Amino acid sequence: MQIGDPVTPQIEARARDSFARQGLMTYLGAEIAEVRAGLVTLRLPYRAELTQQHGFFHAGGTSAIADSAGGYAGFTMFPEGSSVLTVEFKINLISPAQGEFLEATGRVIKTGRTLTICQLDVWGVTGDRRKHVAAGMQTLICLHDTPDAPPA
Amino acid sequence: MQIGDPVTPQIEARARDSFARQGLMTYLGAEIAEVRAGLVTLRLPYRAELTQQHGFFHAGGTSAIADSAGGYAGFTMFPEGSSVLTVEFKINLISPAQGEFLEATGRVIKTGRTLTICQLDVWGVTGDRRKHVAAGMQTLICLHDTPDAPPA
Amino acid sequence: MQIGDPVTPQIEARARDSFARQGLMTYLGAEIAEVRAGLVTLRLPYRAELTQQHGFFHAGGTSAIADSAGGYAGFTMFPEGSSVLTVEFKINLISPAQGEFLEATGRVIKTGRTLTICQLDVWGVTGDRRKHVAAGMQTLICLHDTPDAPPA
Amino acid sequence: MQIGDPVTPQIEARARDSFARQGLMTYLGAEIAEVRAGLVTLRLPYRAELTQQHGFFHAGGTSAIADSAGGYAGFTMFPEGSSVLTVEFKINLISPAQGEFLEATGRVIKTGRTLTICQLDVWGVTGDRRKHVAAGMQTLICLHDTPDAPPA
Repeated sequence: MQIGDPVTPQIEARARDSFARQGLMTYLGAEIAEVRAGLVTLRLPYRAELTQQHGFFHAGGTSAIADSAGGYAGFTMFPEGSSVLTVEFKINLISPAQGEFLEATGRVIKTGRTLTICQLDVWGVTGDRRKHVAAGMQTLICLHDTPDAPPA
Repeated sequence: MQIGDPVTPQIEARARDSFARQGLMTYLGAEIAEVRAGLVTLRLPYRAELTQQHGFFHAGGTSAIADSAGGYAGFTMFPEGSSVLTVEFKINLISPAQGEFLEATGRVIKTGRTLTICQLDVWGVTGDRRKHVAAGMQTLICLHDTPDAPPA
Repeated sequence: MQIGDPVTPQIEARARDSFARQGLMTYLGAEIAEVRAGLVTLRLPYRAELTQQHGFFHAGGTSAIADSAGGYAGFTMFPEGSSVLTVEFKINLISPAQGEFLEATGRVIKTGRTLTICQLDVWGVTGDRRKHVAAGMQTLICLHDTPDAPPA
Repeated sequence: MQIGDPVTPQIEARARDSFARQGLMTYLGAEIAEVRAGLVTLRLPYRAELTQQHGFFHAGGTSAIADSAGGYAGFTMFPEGSSVLTVEFKINLISPAQGEFLEATGRVIKTGRTLTICQLDVWGVTGDRRKHVAAGMQTLICLHDTPDAPPA
């Protein structure tokens, strides 16, 4: 399996179900645009509730969708019955985060039994225009035999 | 002036006014707990709208308040008429982010004419119990002669 | 000018002269393999003097050439008479750093008047085999009107 | 055991033996100044072989000793028979790295079965004067049942 390949319906459903349990993603208005092997794209439409003091998207929102995009990119490559946590991430905010929506991709650059490393990128999109607004890197940990949901 | 010293009412008002214009902070329910020279503390009460898939605070919320705490810590030391932007930050999520609320501090470790570096820490607080849940570092840029608000 | 384009002989000479003044690069045995616009490649041959405790290249050597590759990638795009300093970098050591030599590339992903952001990558190379051993990101600052050499 | 407590002679010897096998540390001229529980201090005397183009210590040397200080800080807390690898680190170079020697400390801020997080700090020291020149964070992984030496 190569990064960017299609995934099985089971893997896609597992990522979408987990994403749907992230209260913050729903509350911010983020949605999954695409799930591929080791490559997940999220979108976050602009709203005044997501801004910083100059009216751009707040770095916290930009980071939140970058982190989730990377987490689910890693998760597509994890074995059944495992769970994903972010160990750490780093993000450079390279241009003001403006646009009708932000698009964040997480792309696996190395996967291992325990740790997975992702590249994170965020674009501000308005009509046909895409501007690279953030770039980062993320370290994920795979928790084997750990359900990806809270205890019932 | 030492890090942690009291600030003038003008500096405190400038930080609080700017924070109040961050749509995301209001929407998440974050508030400023304390403004000191180069040291700002924010709080974020727990809500289901802030969670990740296991029911803990989402790293995006943890990061958002860490980033704002650092940004305003730097801003207290910036000259009148300037504005603050985050260049980049890095955060390690060292324990599951649980508690009645999160408390984030940004603490300036180096300030310069252009760049300011902050230490970021987040605790999960329940009653008397405080657990260190995240630690990070942040680089800020001071935009001189740039109003800290959107054009009217 | 696009990233990866050829540079003028003047720009190449400026980068190579500055590199030659980095005592550490000479001492480690690193050399410039290629200078392109916003894209610089360095090589570091294996020696026992560069190892960590398991006999792999030490993360310090891997980081040193990644940092210099990024710094000179940025420097190719800076105006005449300016100088480059690293503000910060982050590096993930994704595989044991082994090989006949390491090859590090710095690639500019955003350039601005003050700050420039680079992607850093390091490969371990043995014969035809290249293994990705480290990936990072770097923030550089351009010091305008500052000679890139110590005071005489 | 608290961070900064004295260590047993066995733990100190284990750290010093491993450090002595790091070819790079010897080659750069670095030495261990102190080993405490989760807190290790290294020193690196100034030499022209360690410089960048302005004559300061190169960020690669600063990073190398910060990385080793953190690695051995973590290693003091690891079980017998295990080994340490750096997963990633991030460093801000907050002032020009000048002085008779650099002093780097690694301090554990969270230790777990698999991952350990350290704070990294480097000072430039000249006589009685100490200047904070770099600050960073590091993620380490503990390889259980893995000898801390190359295969014989």
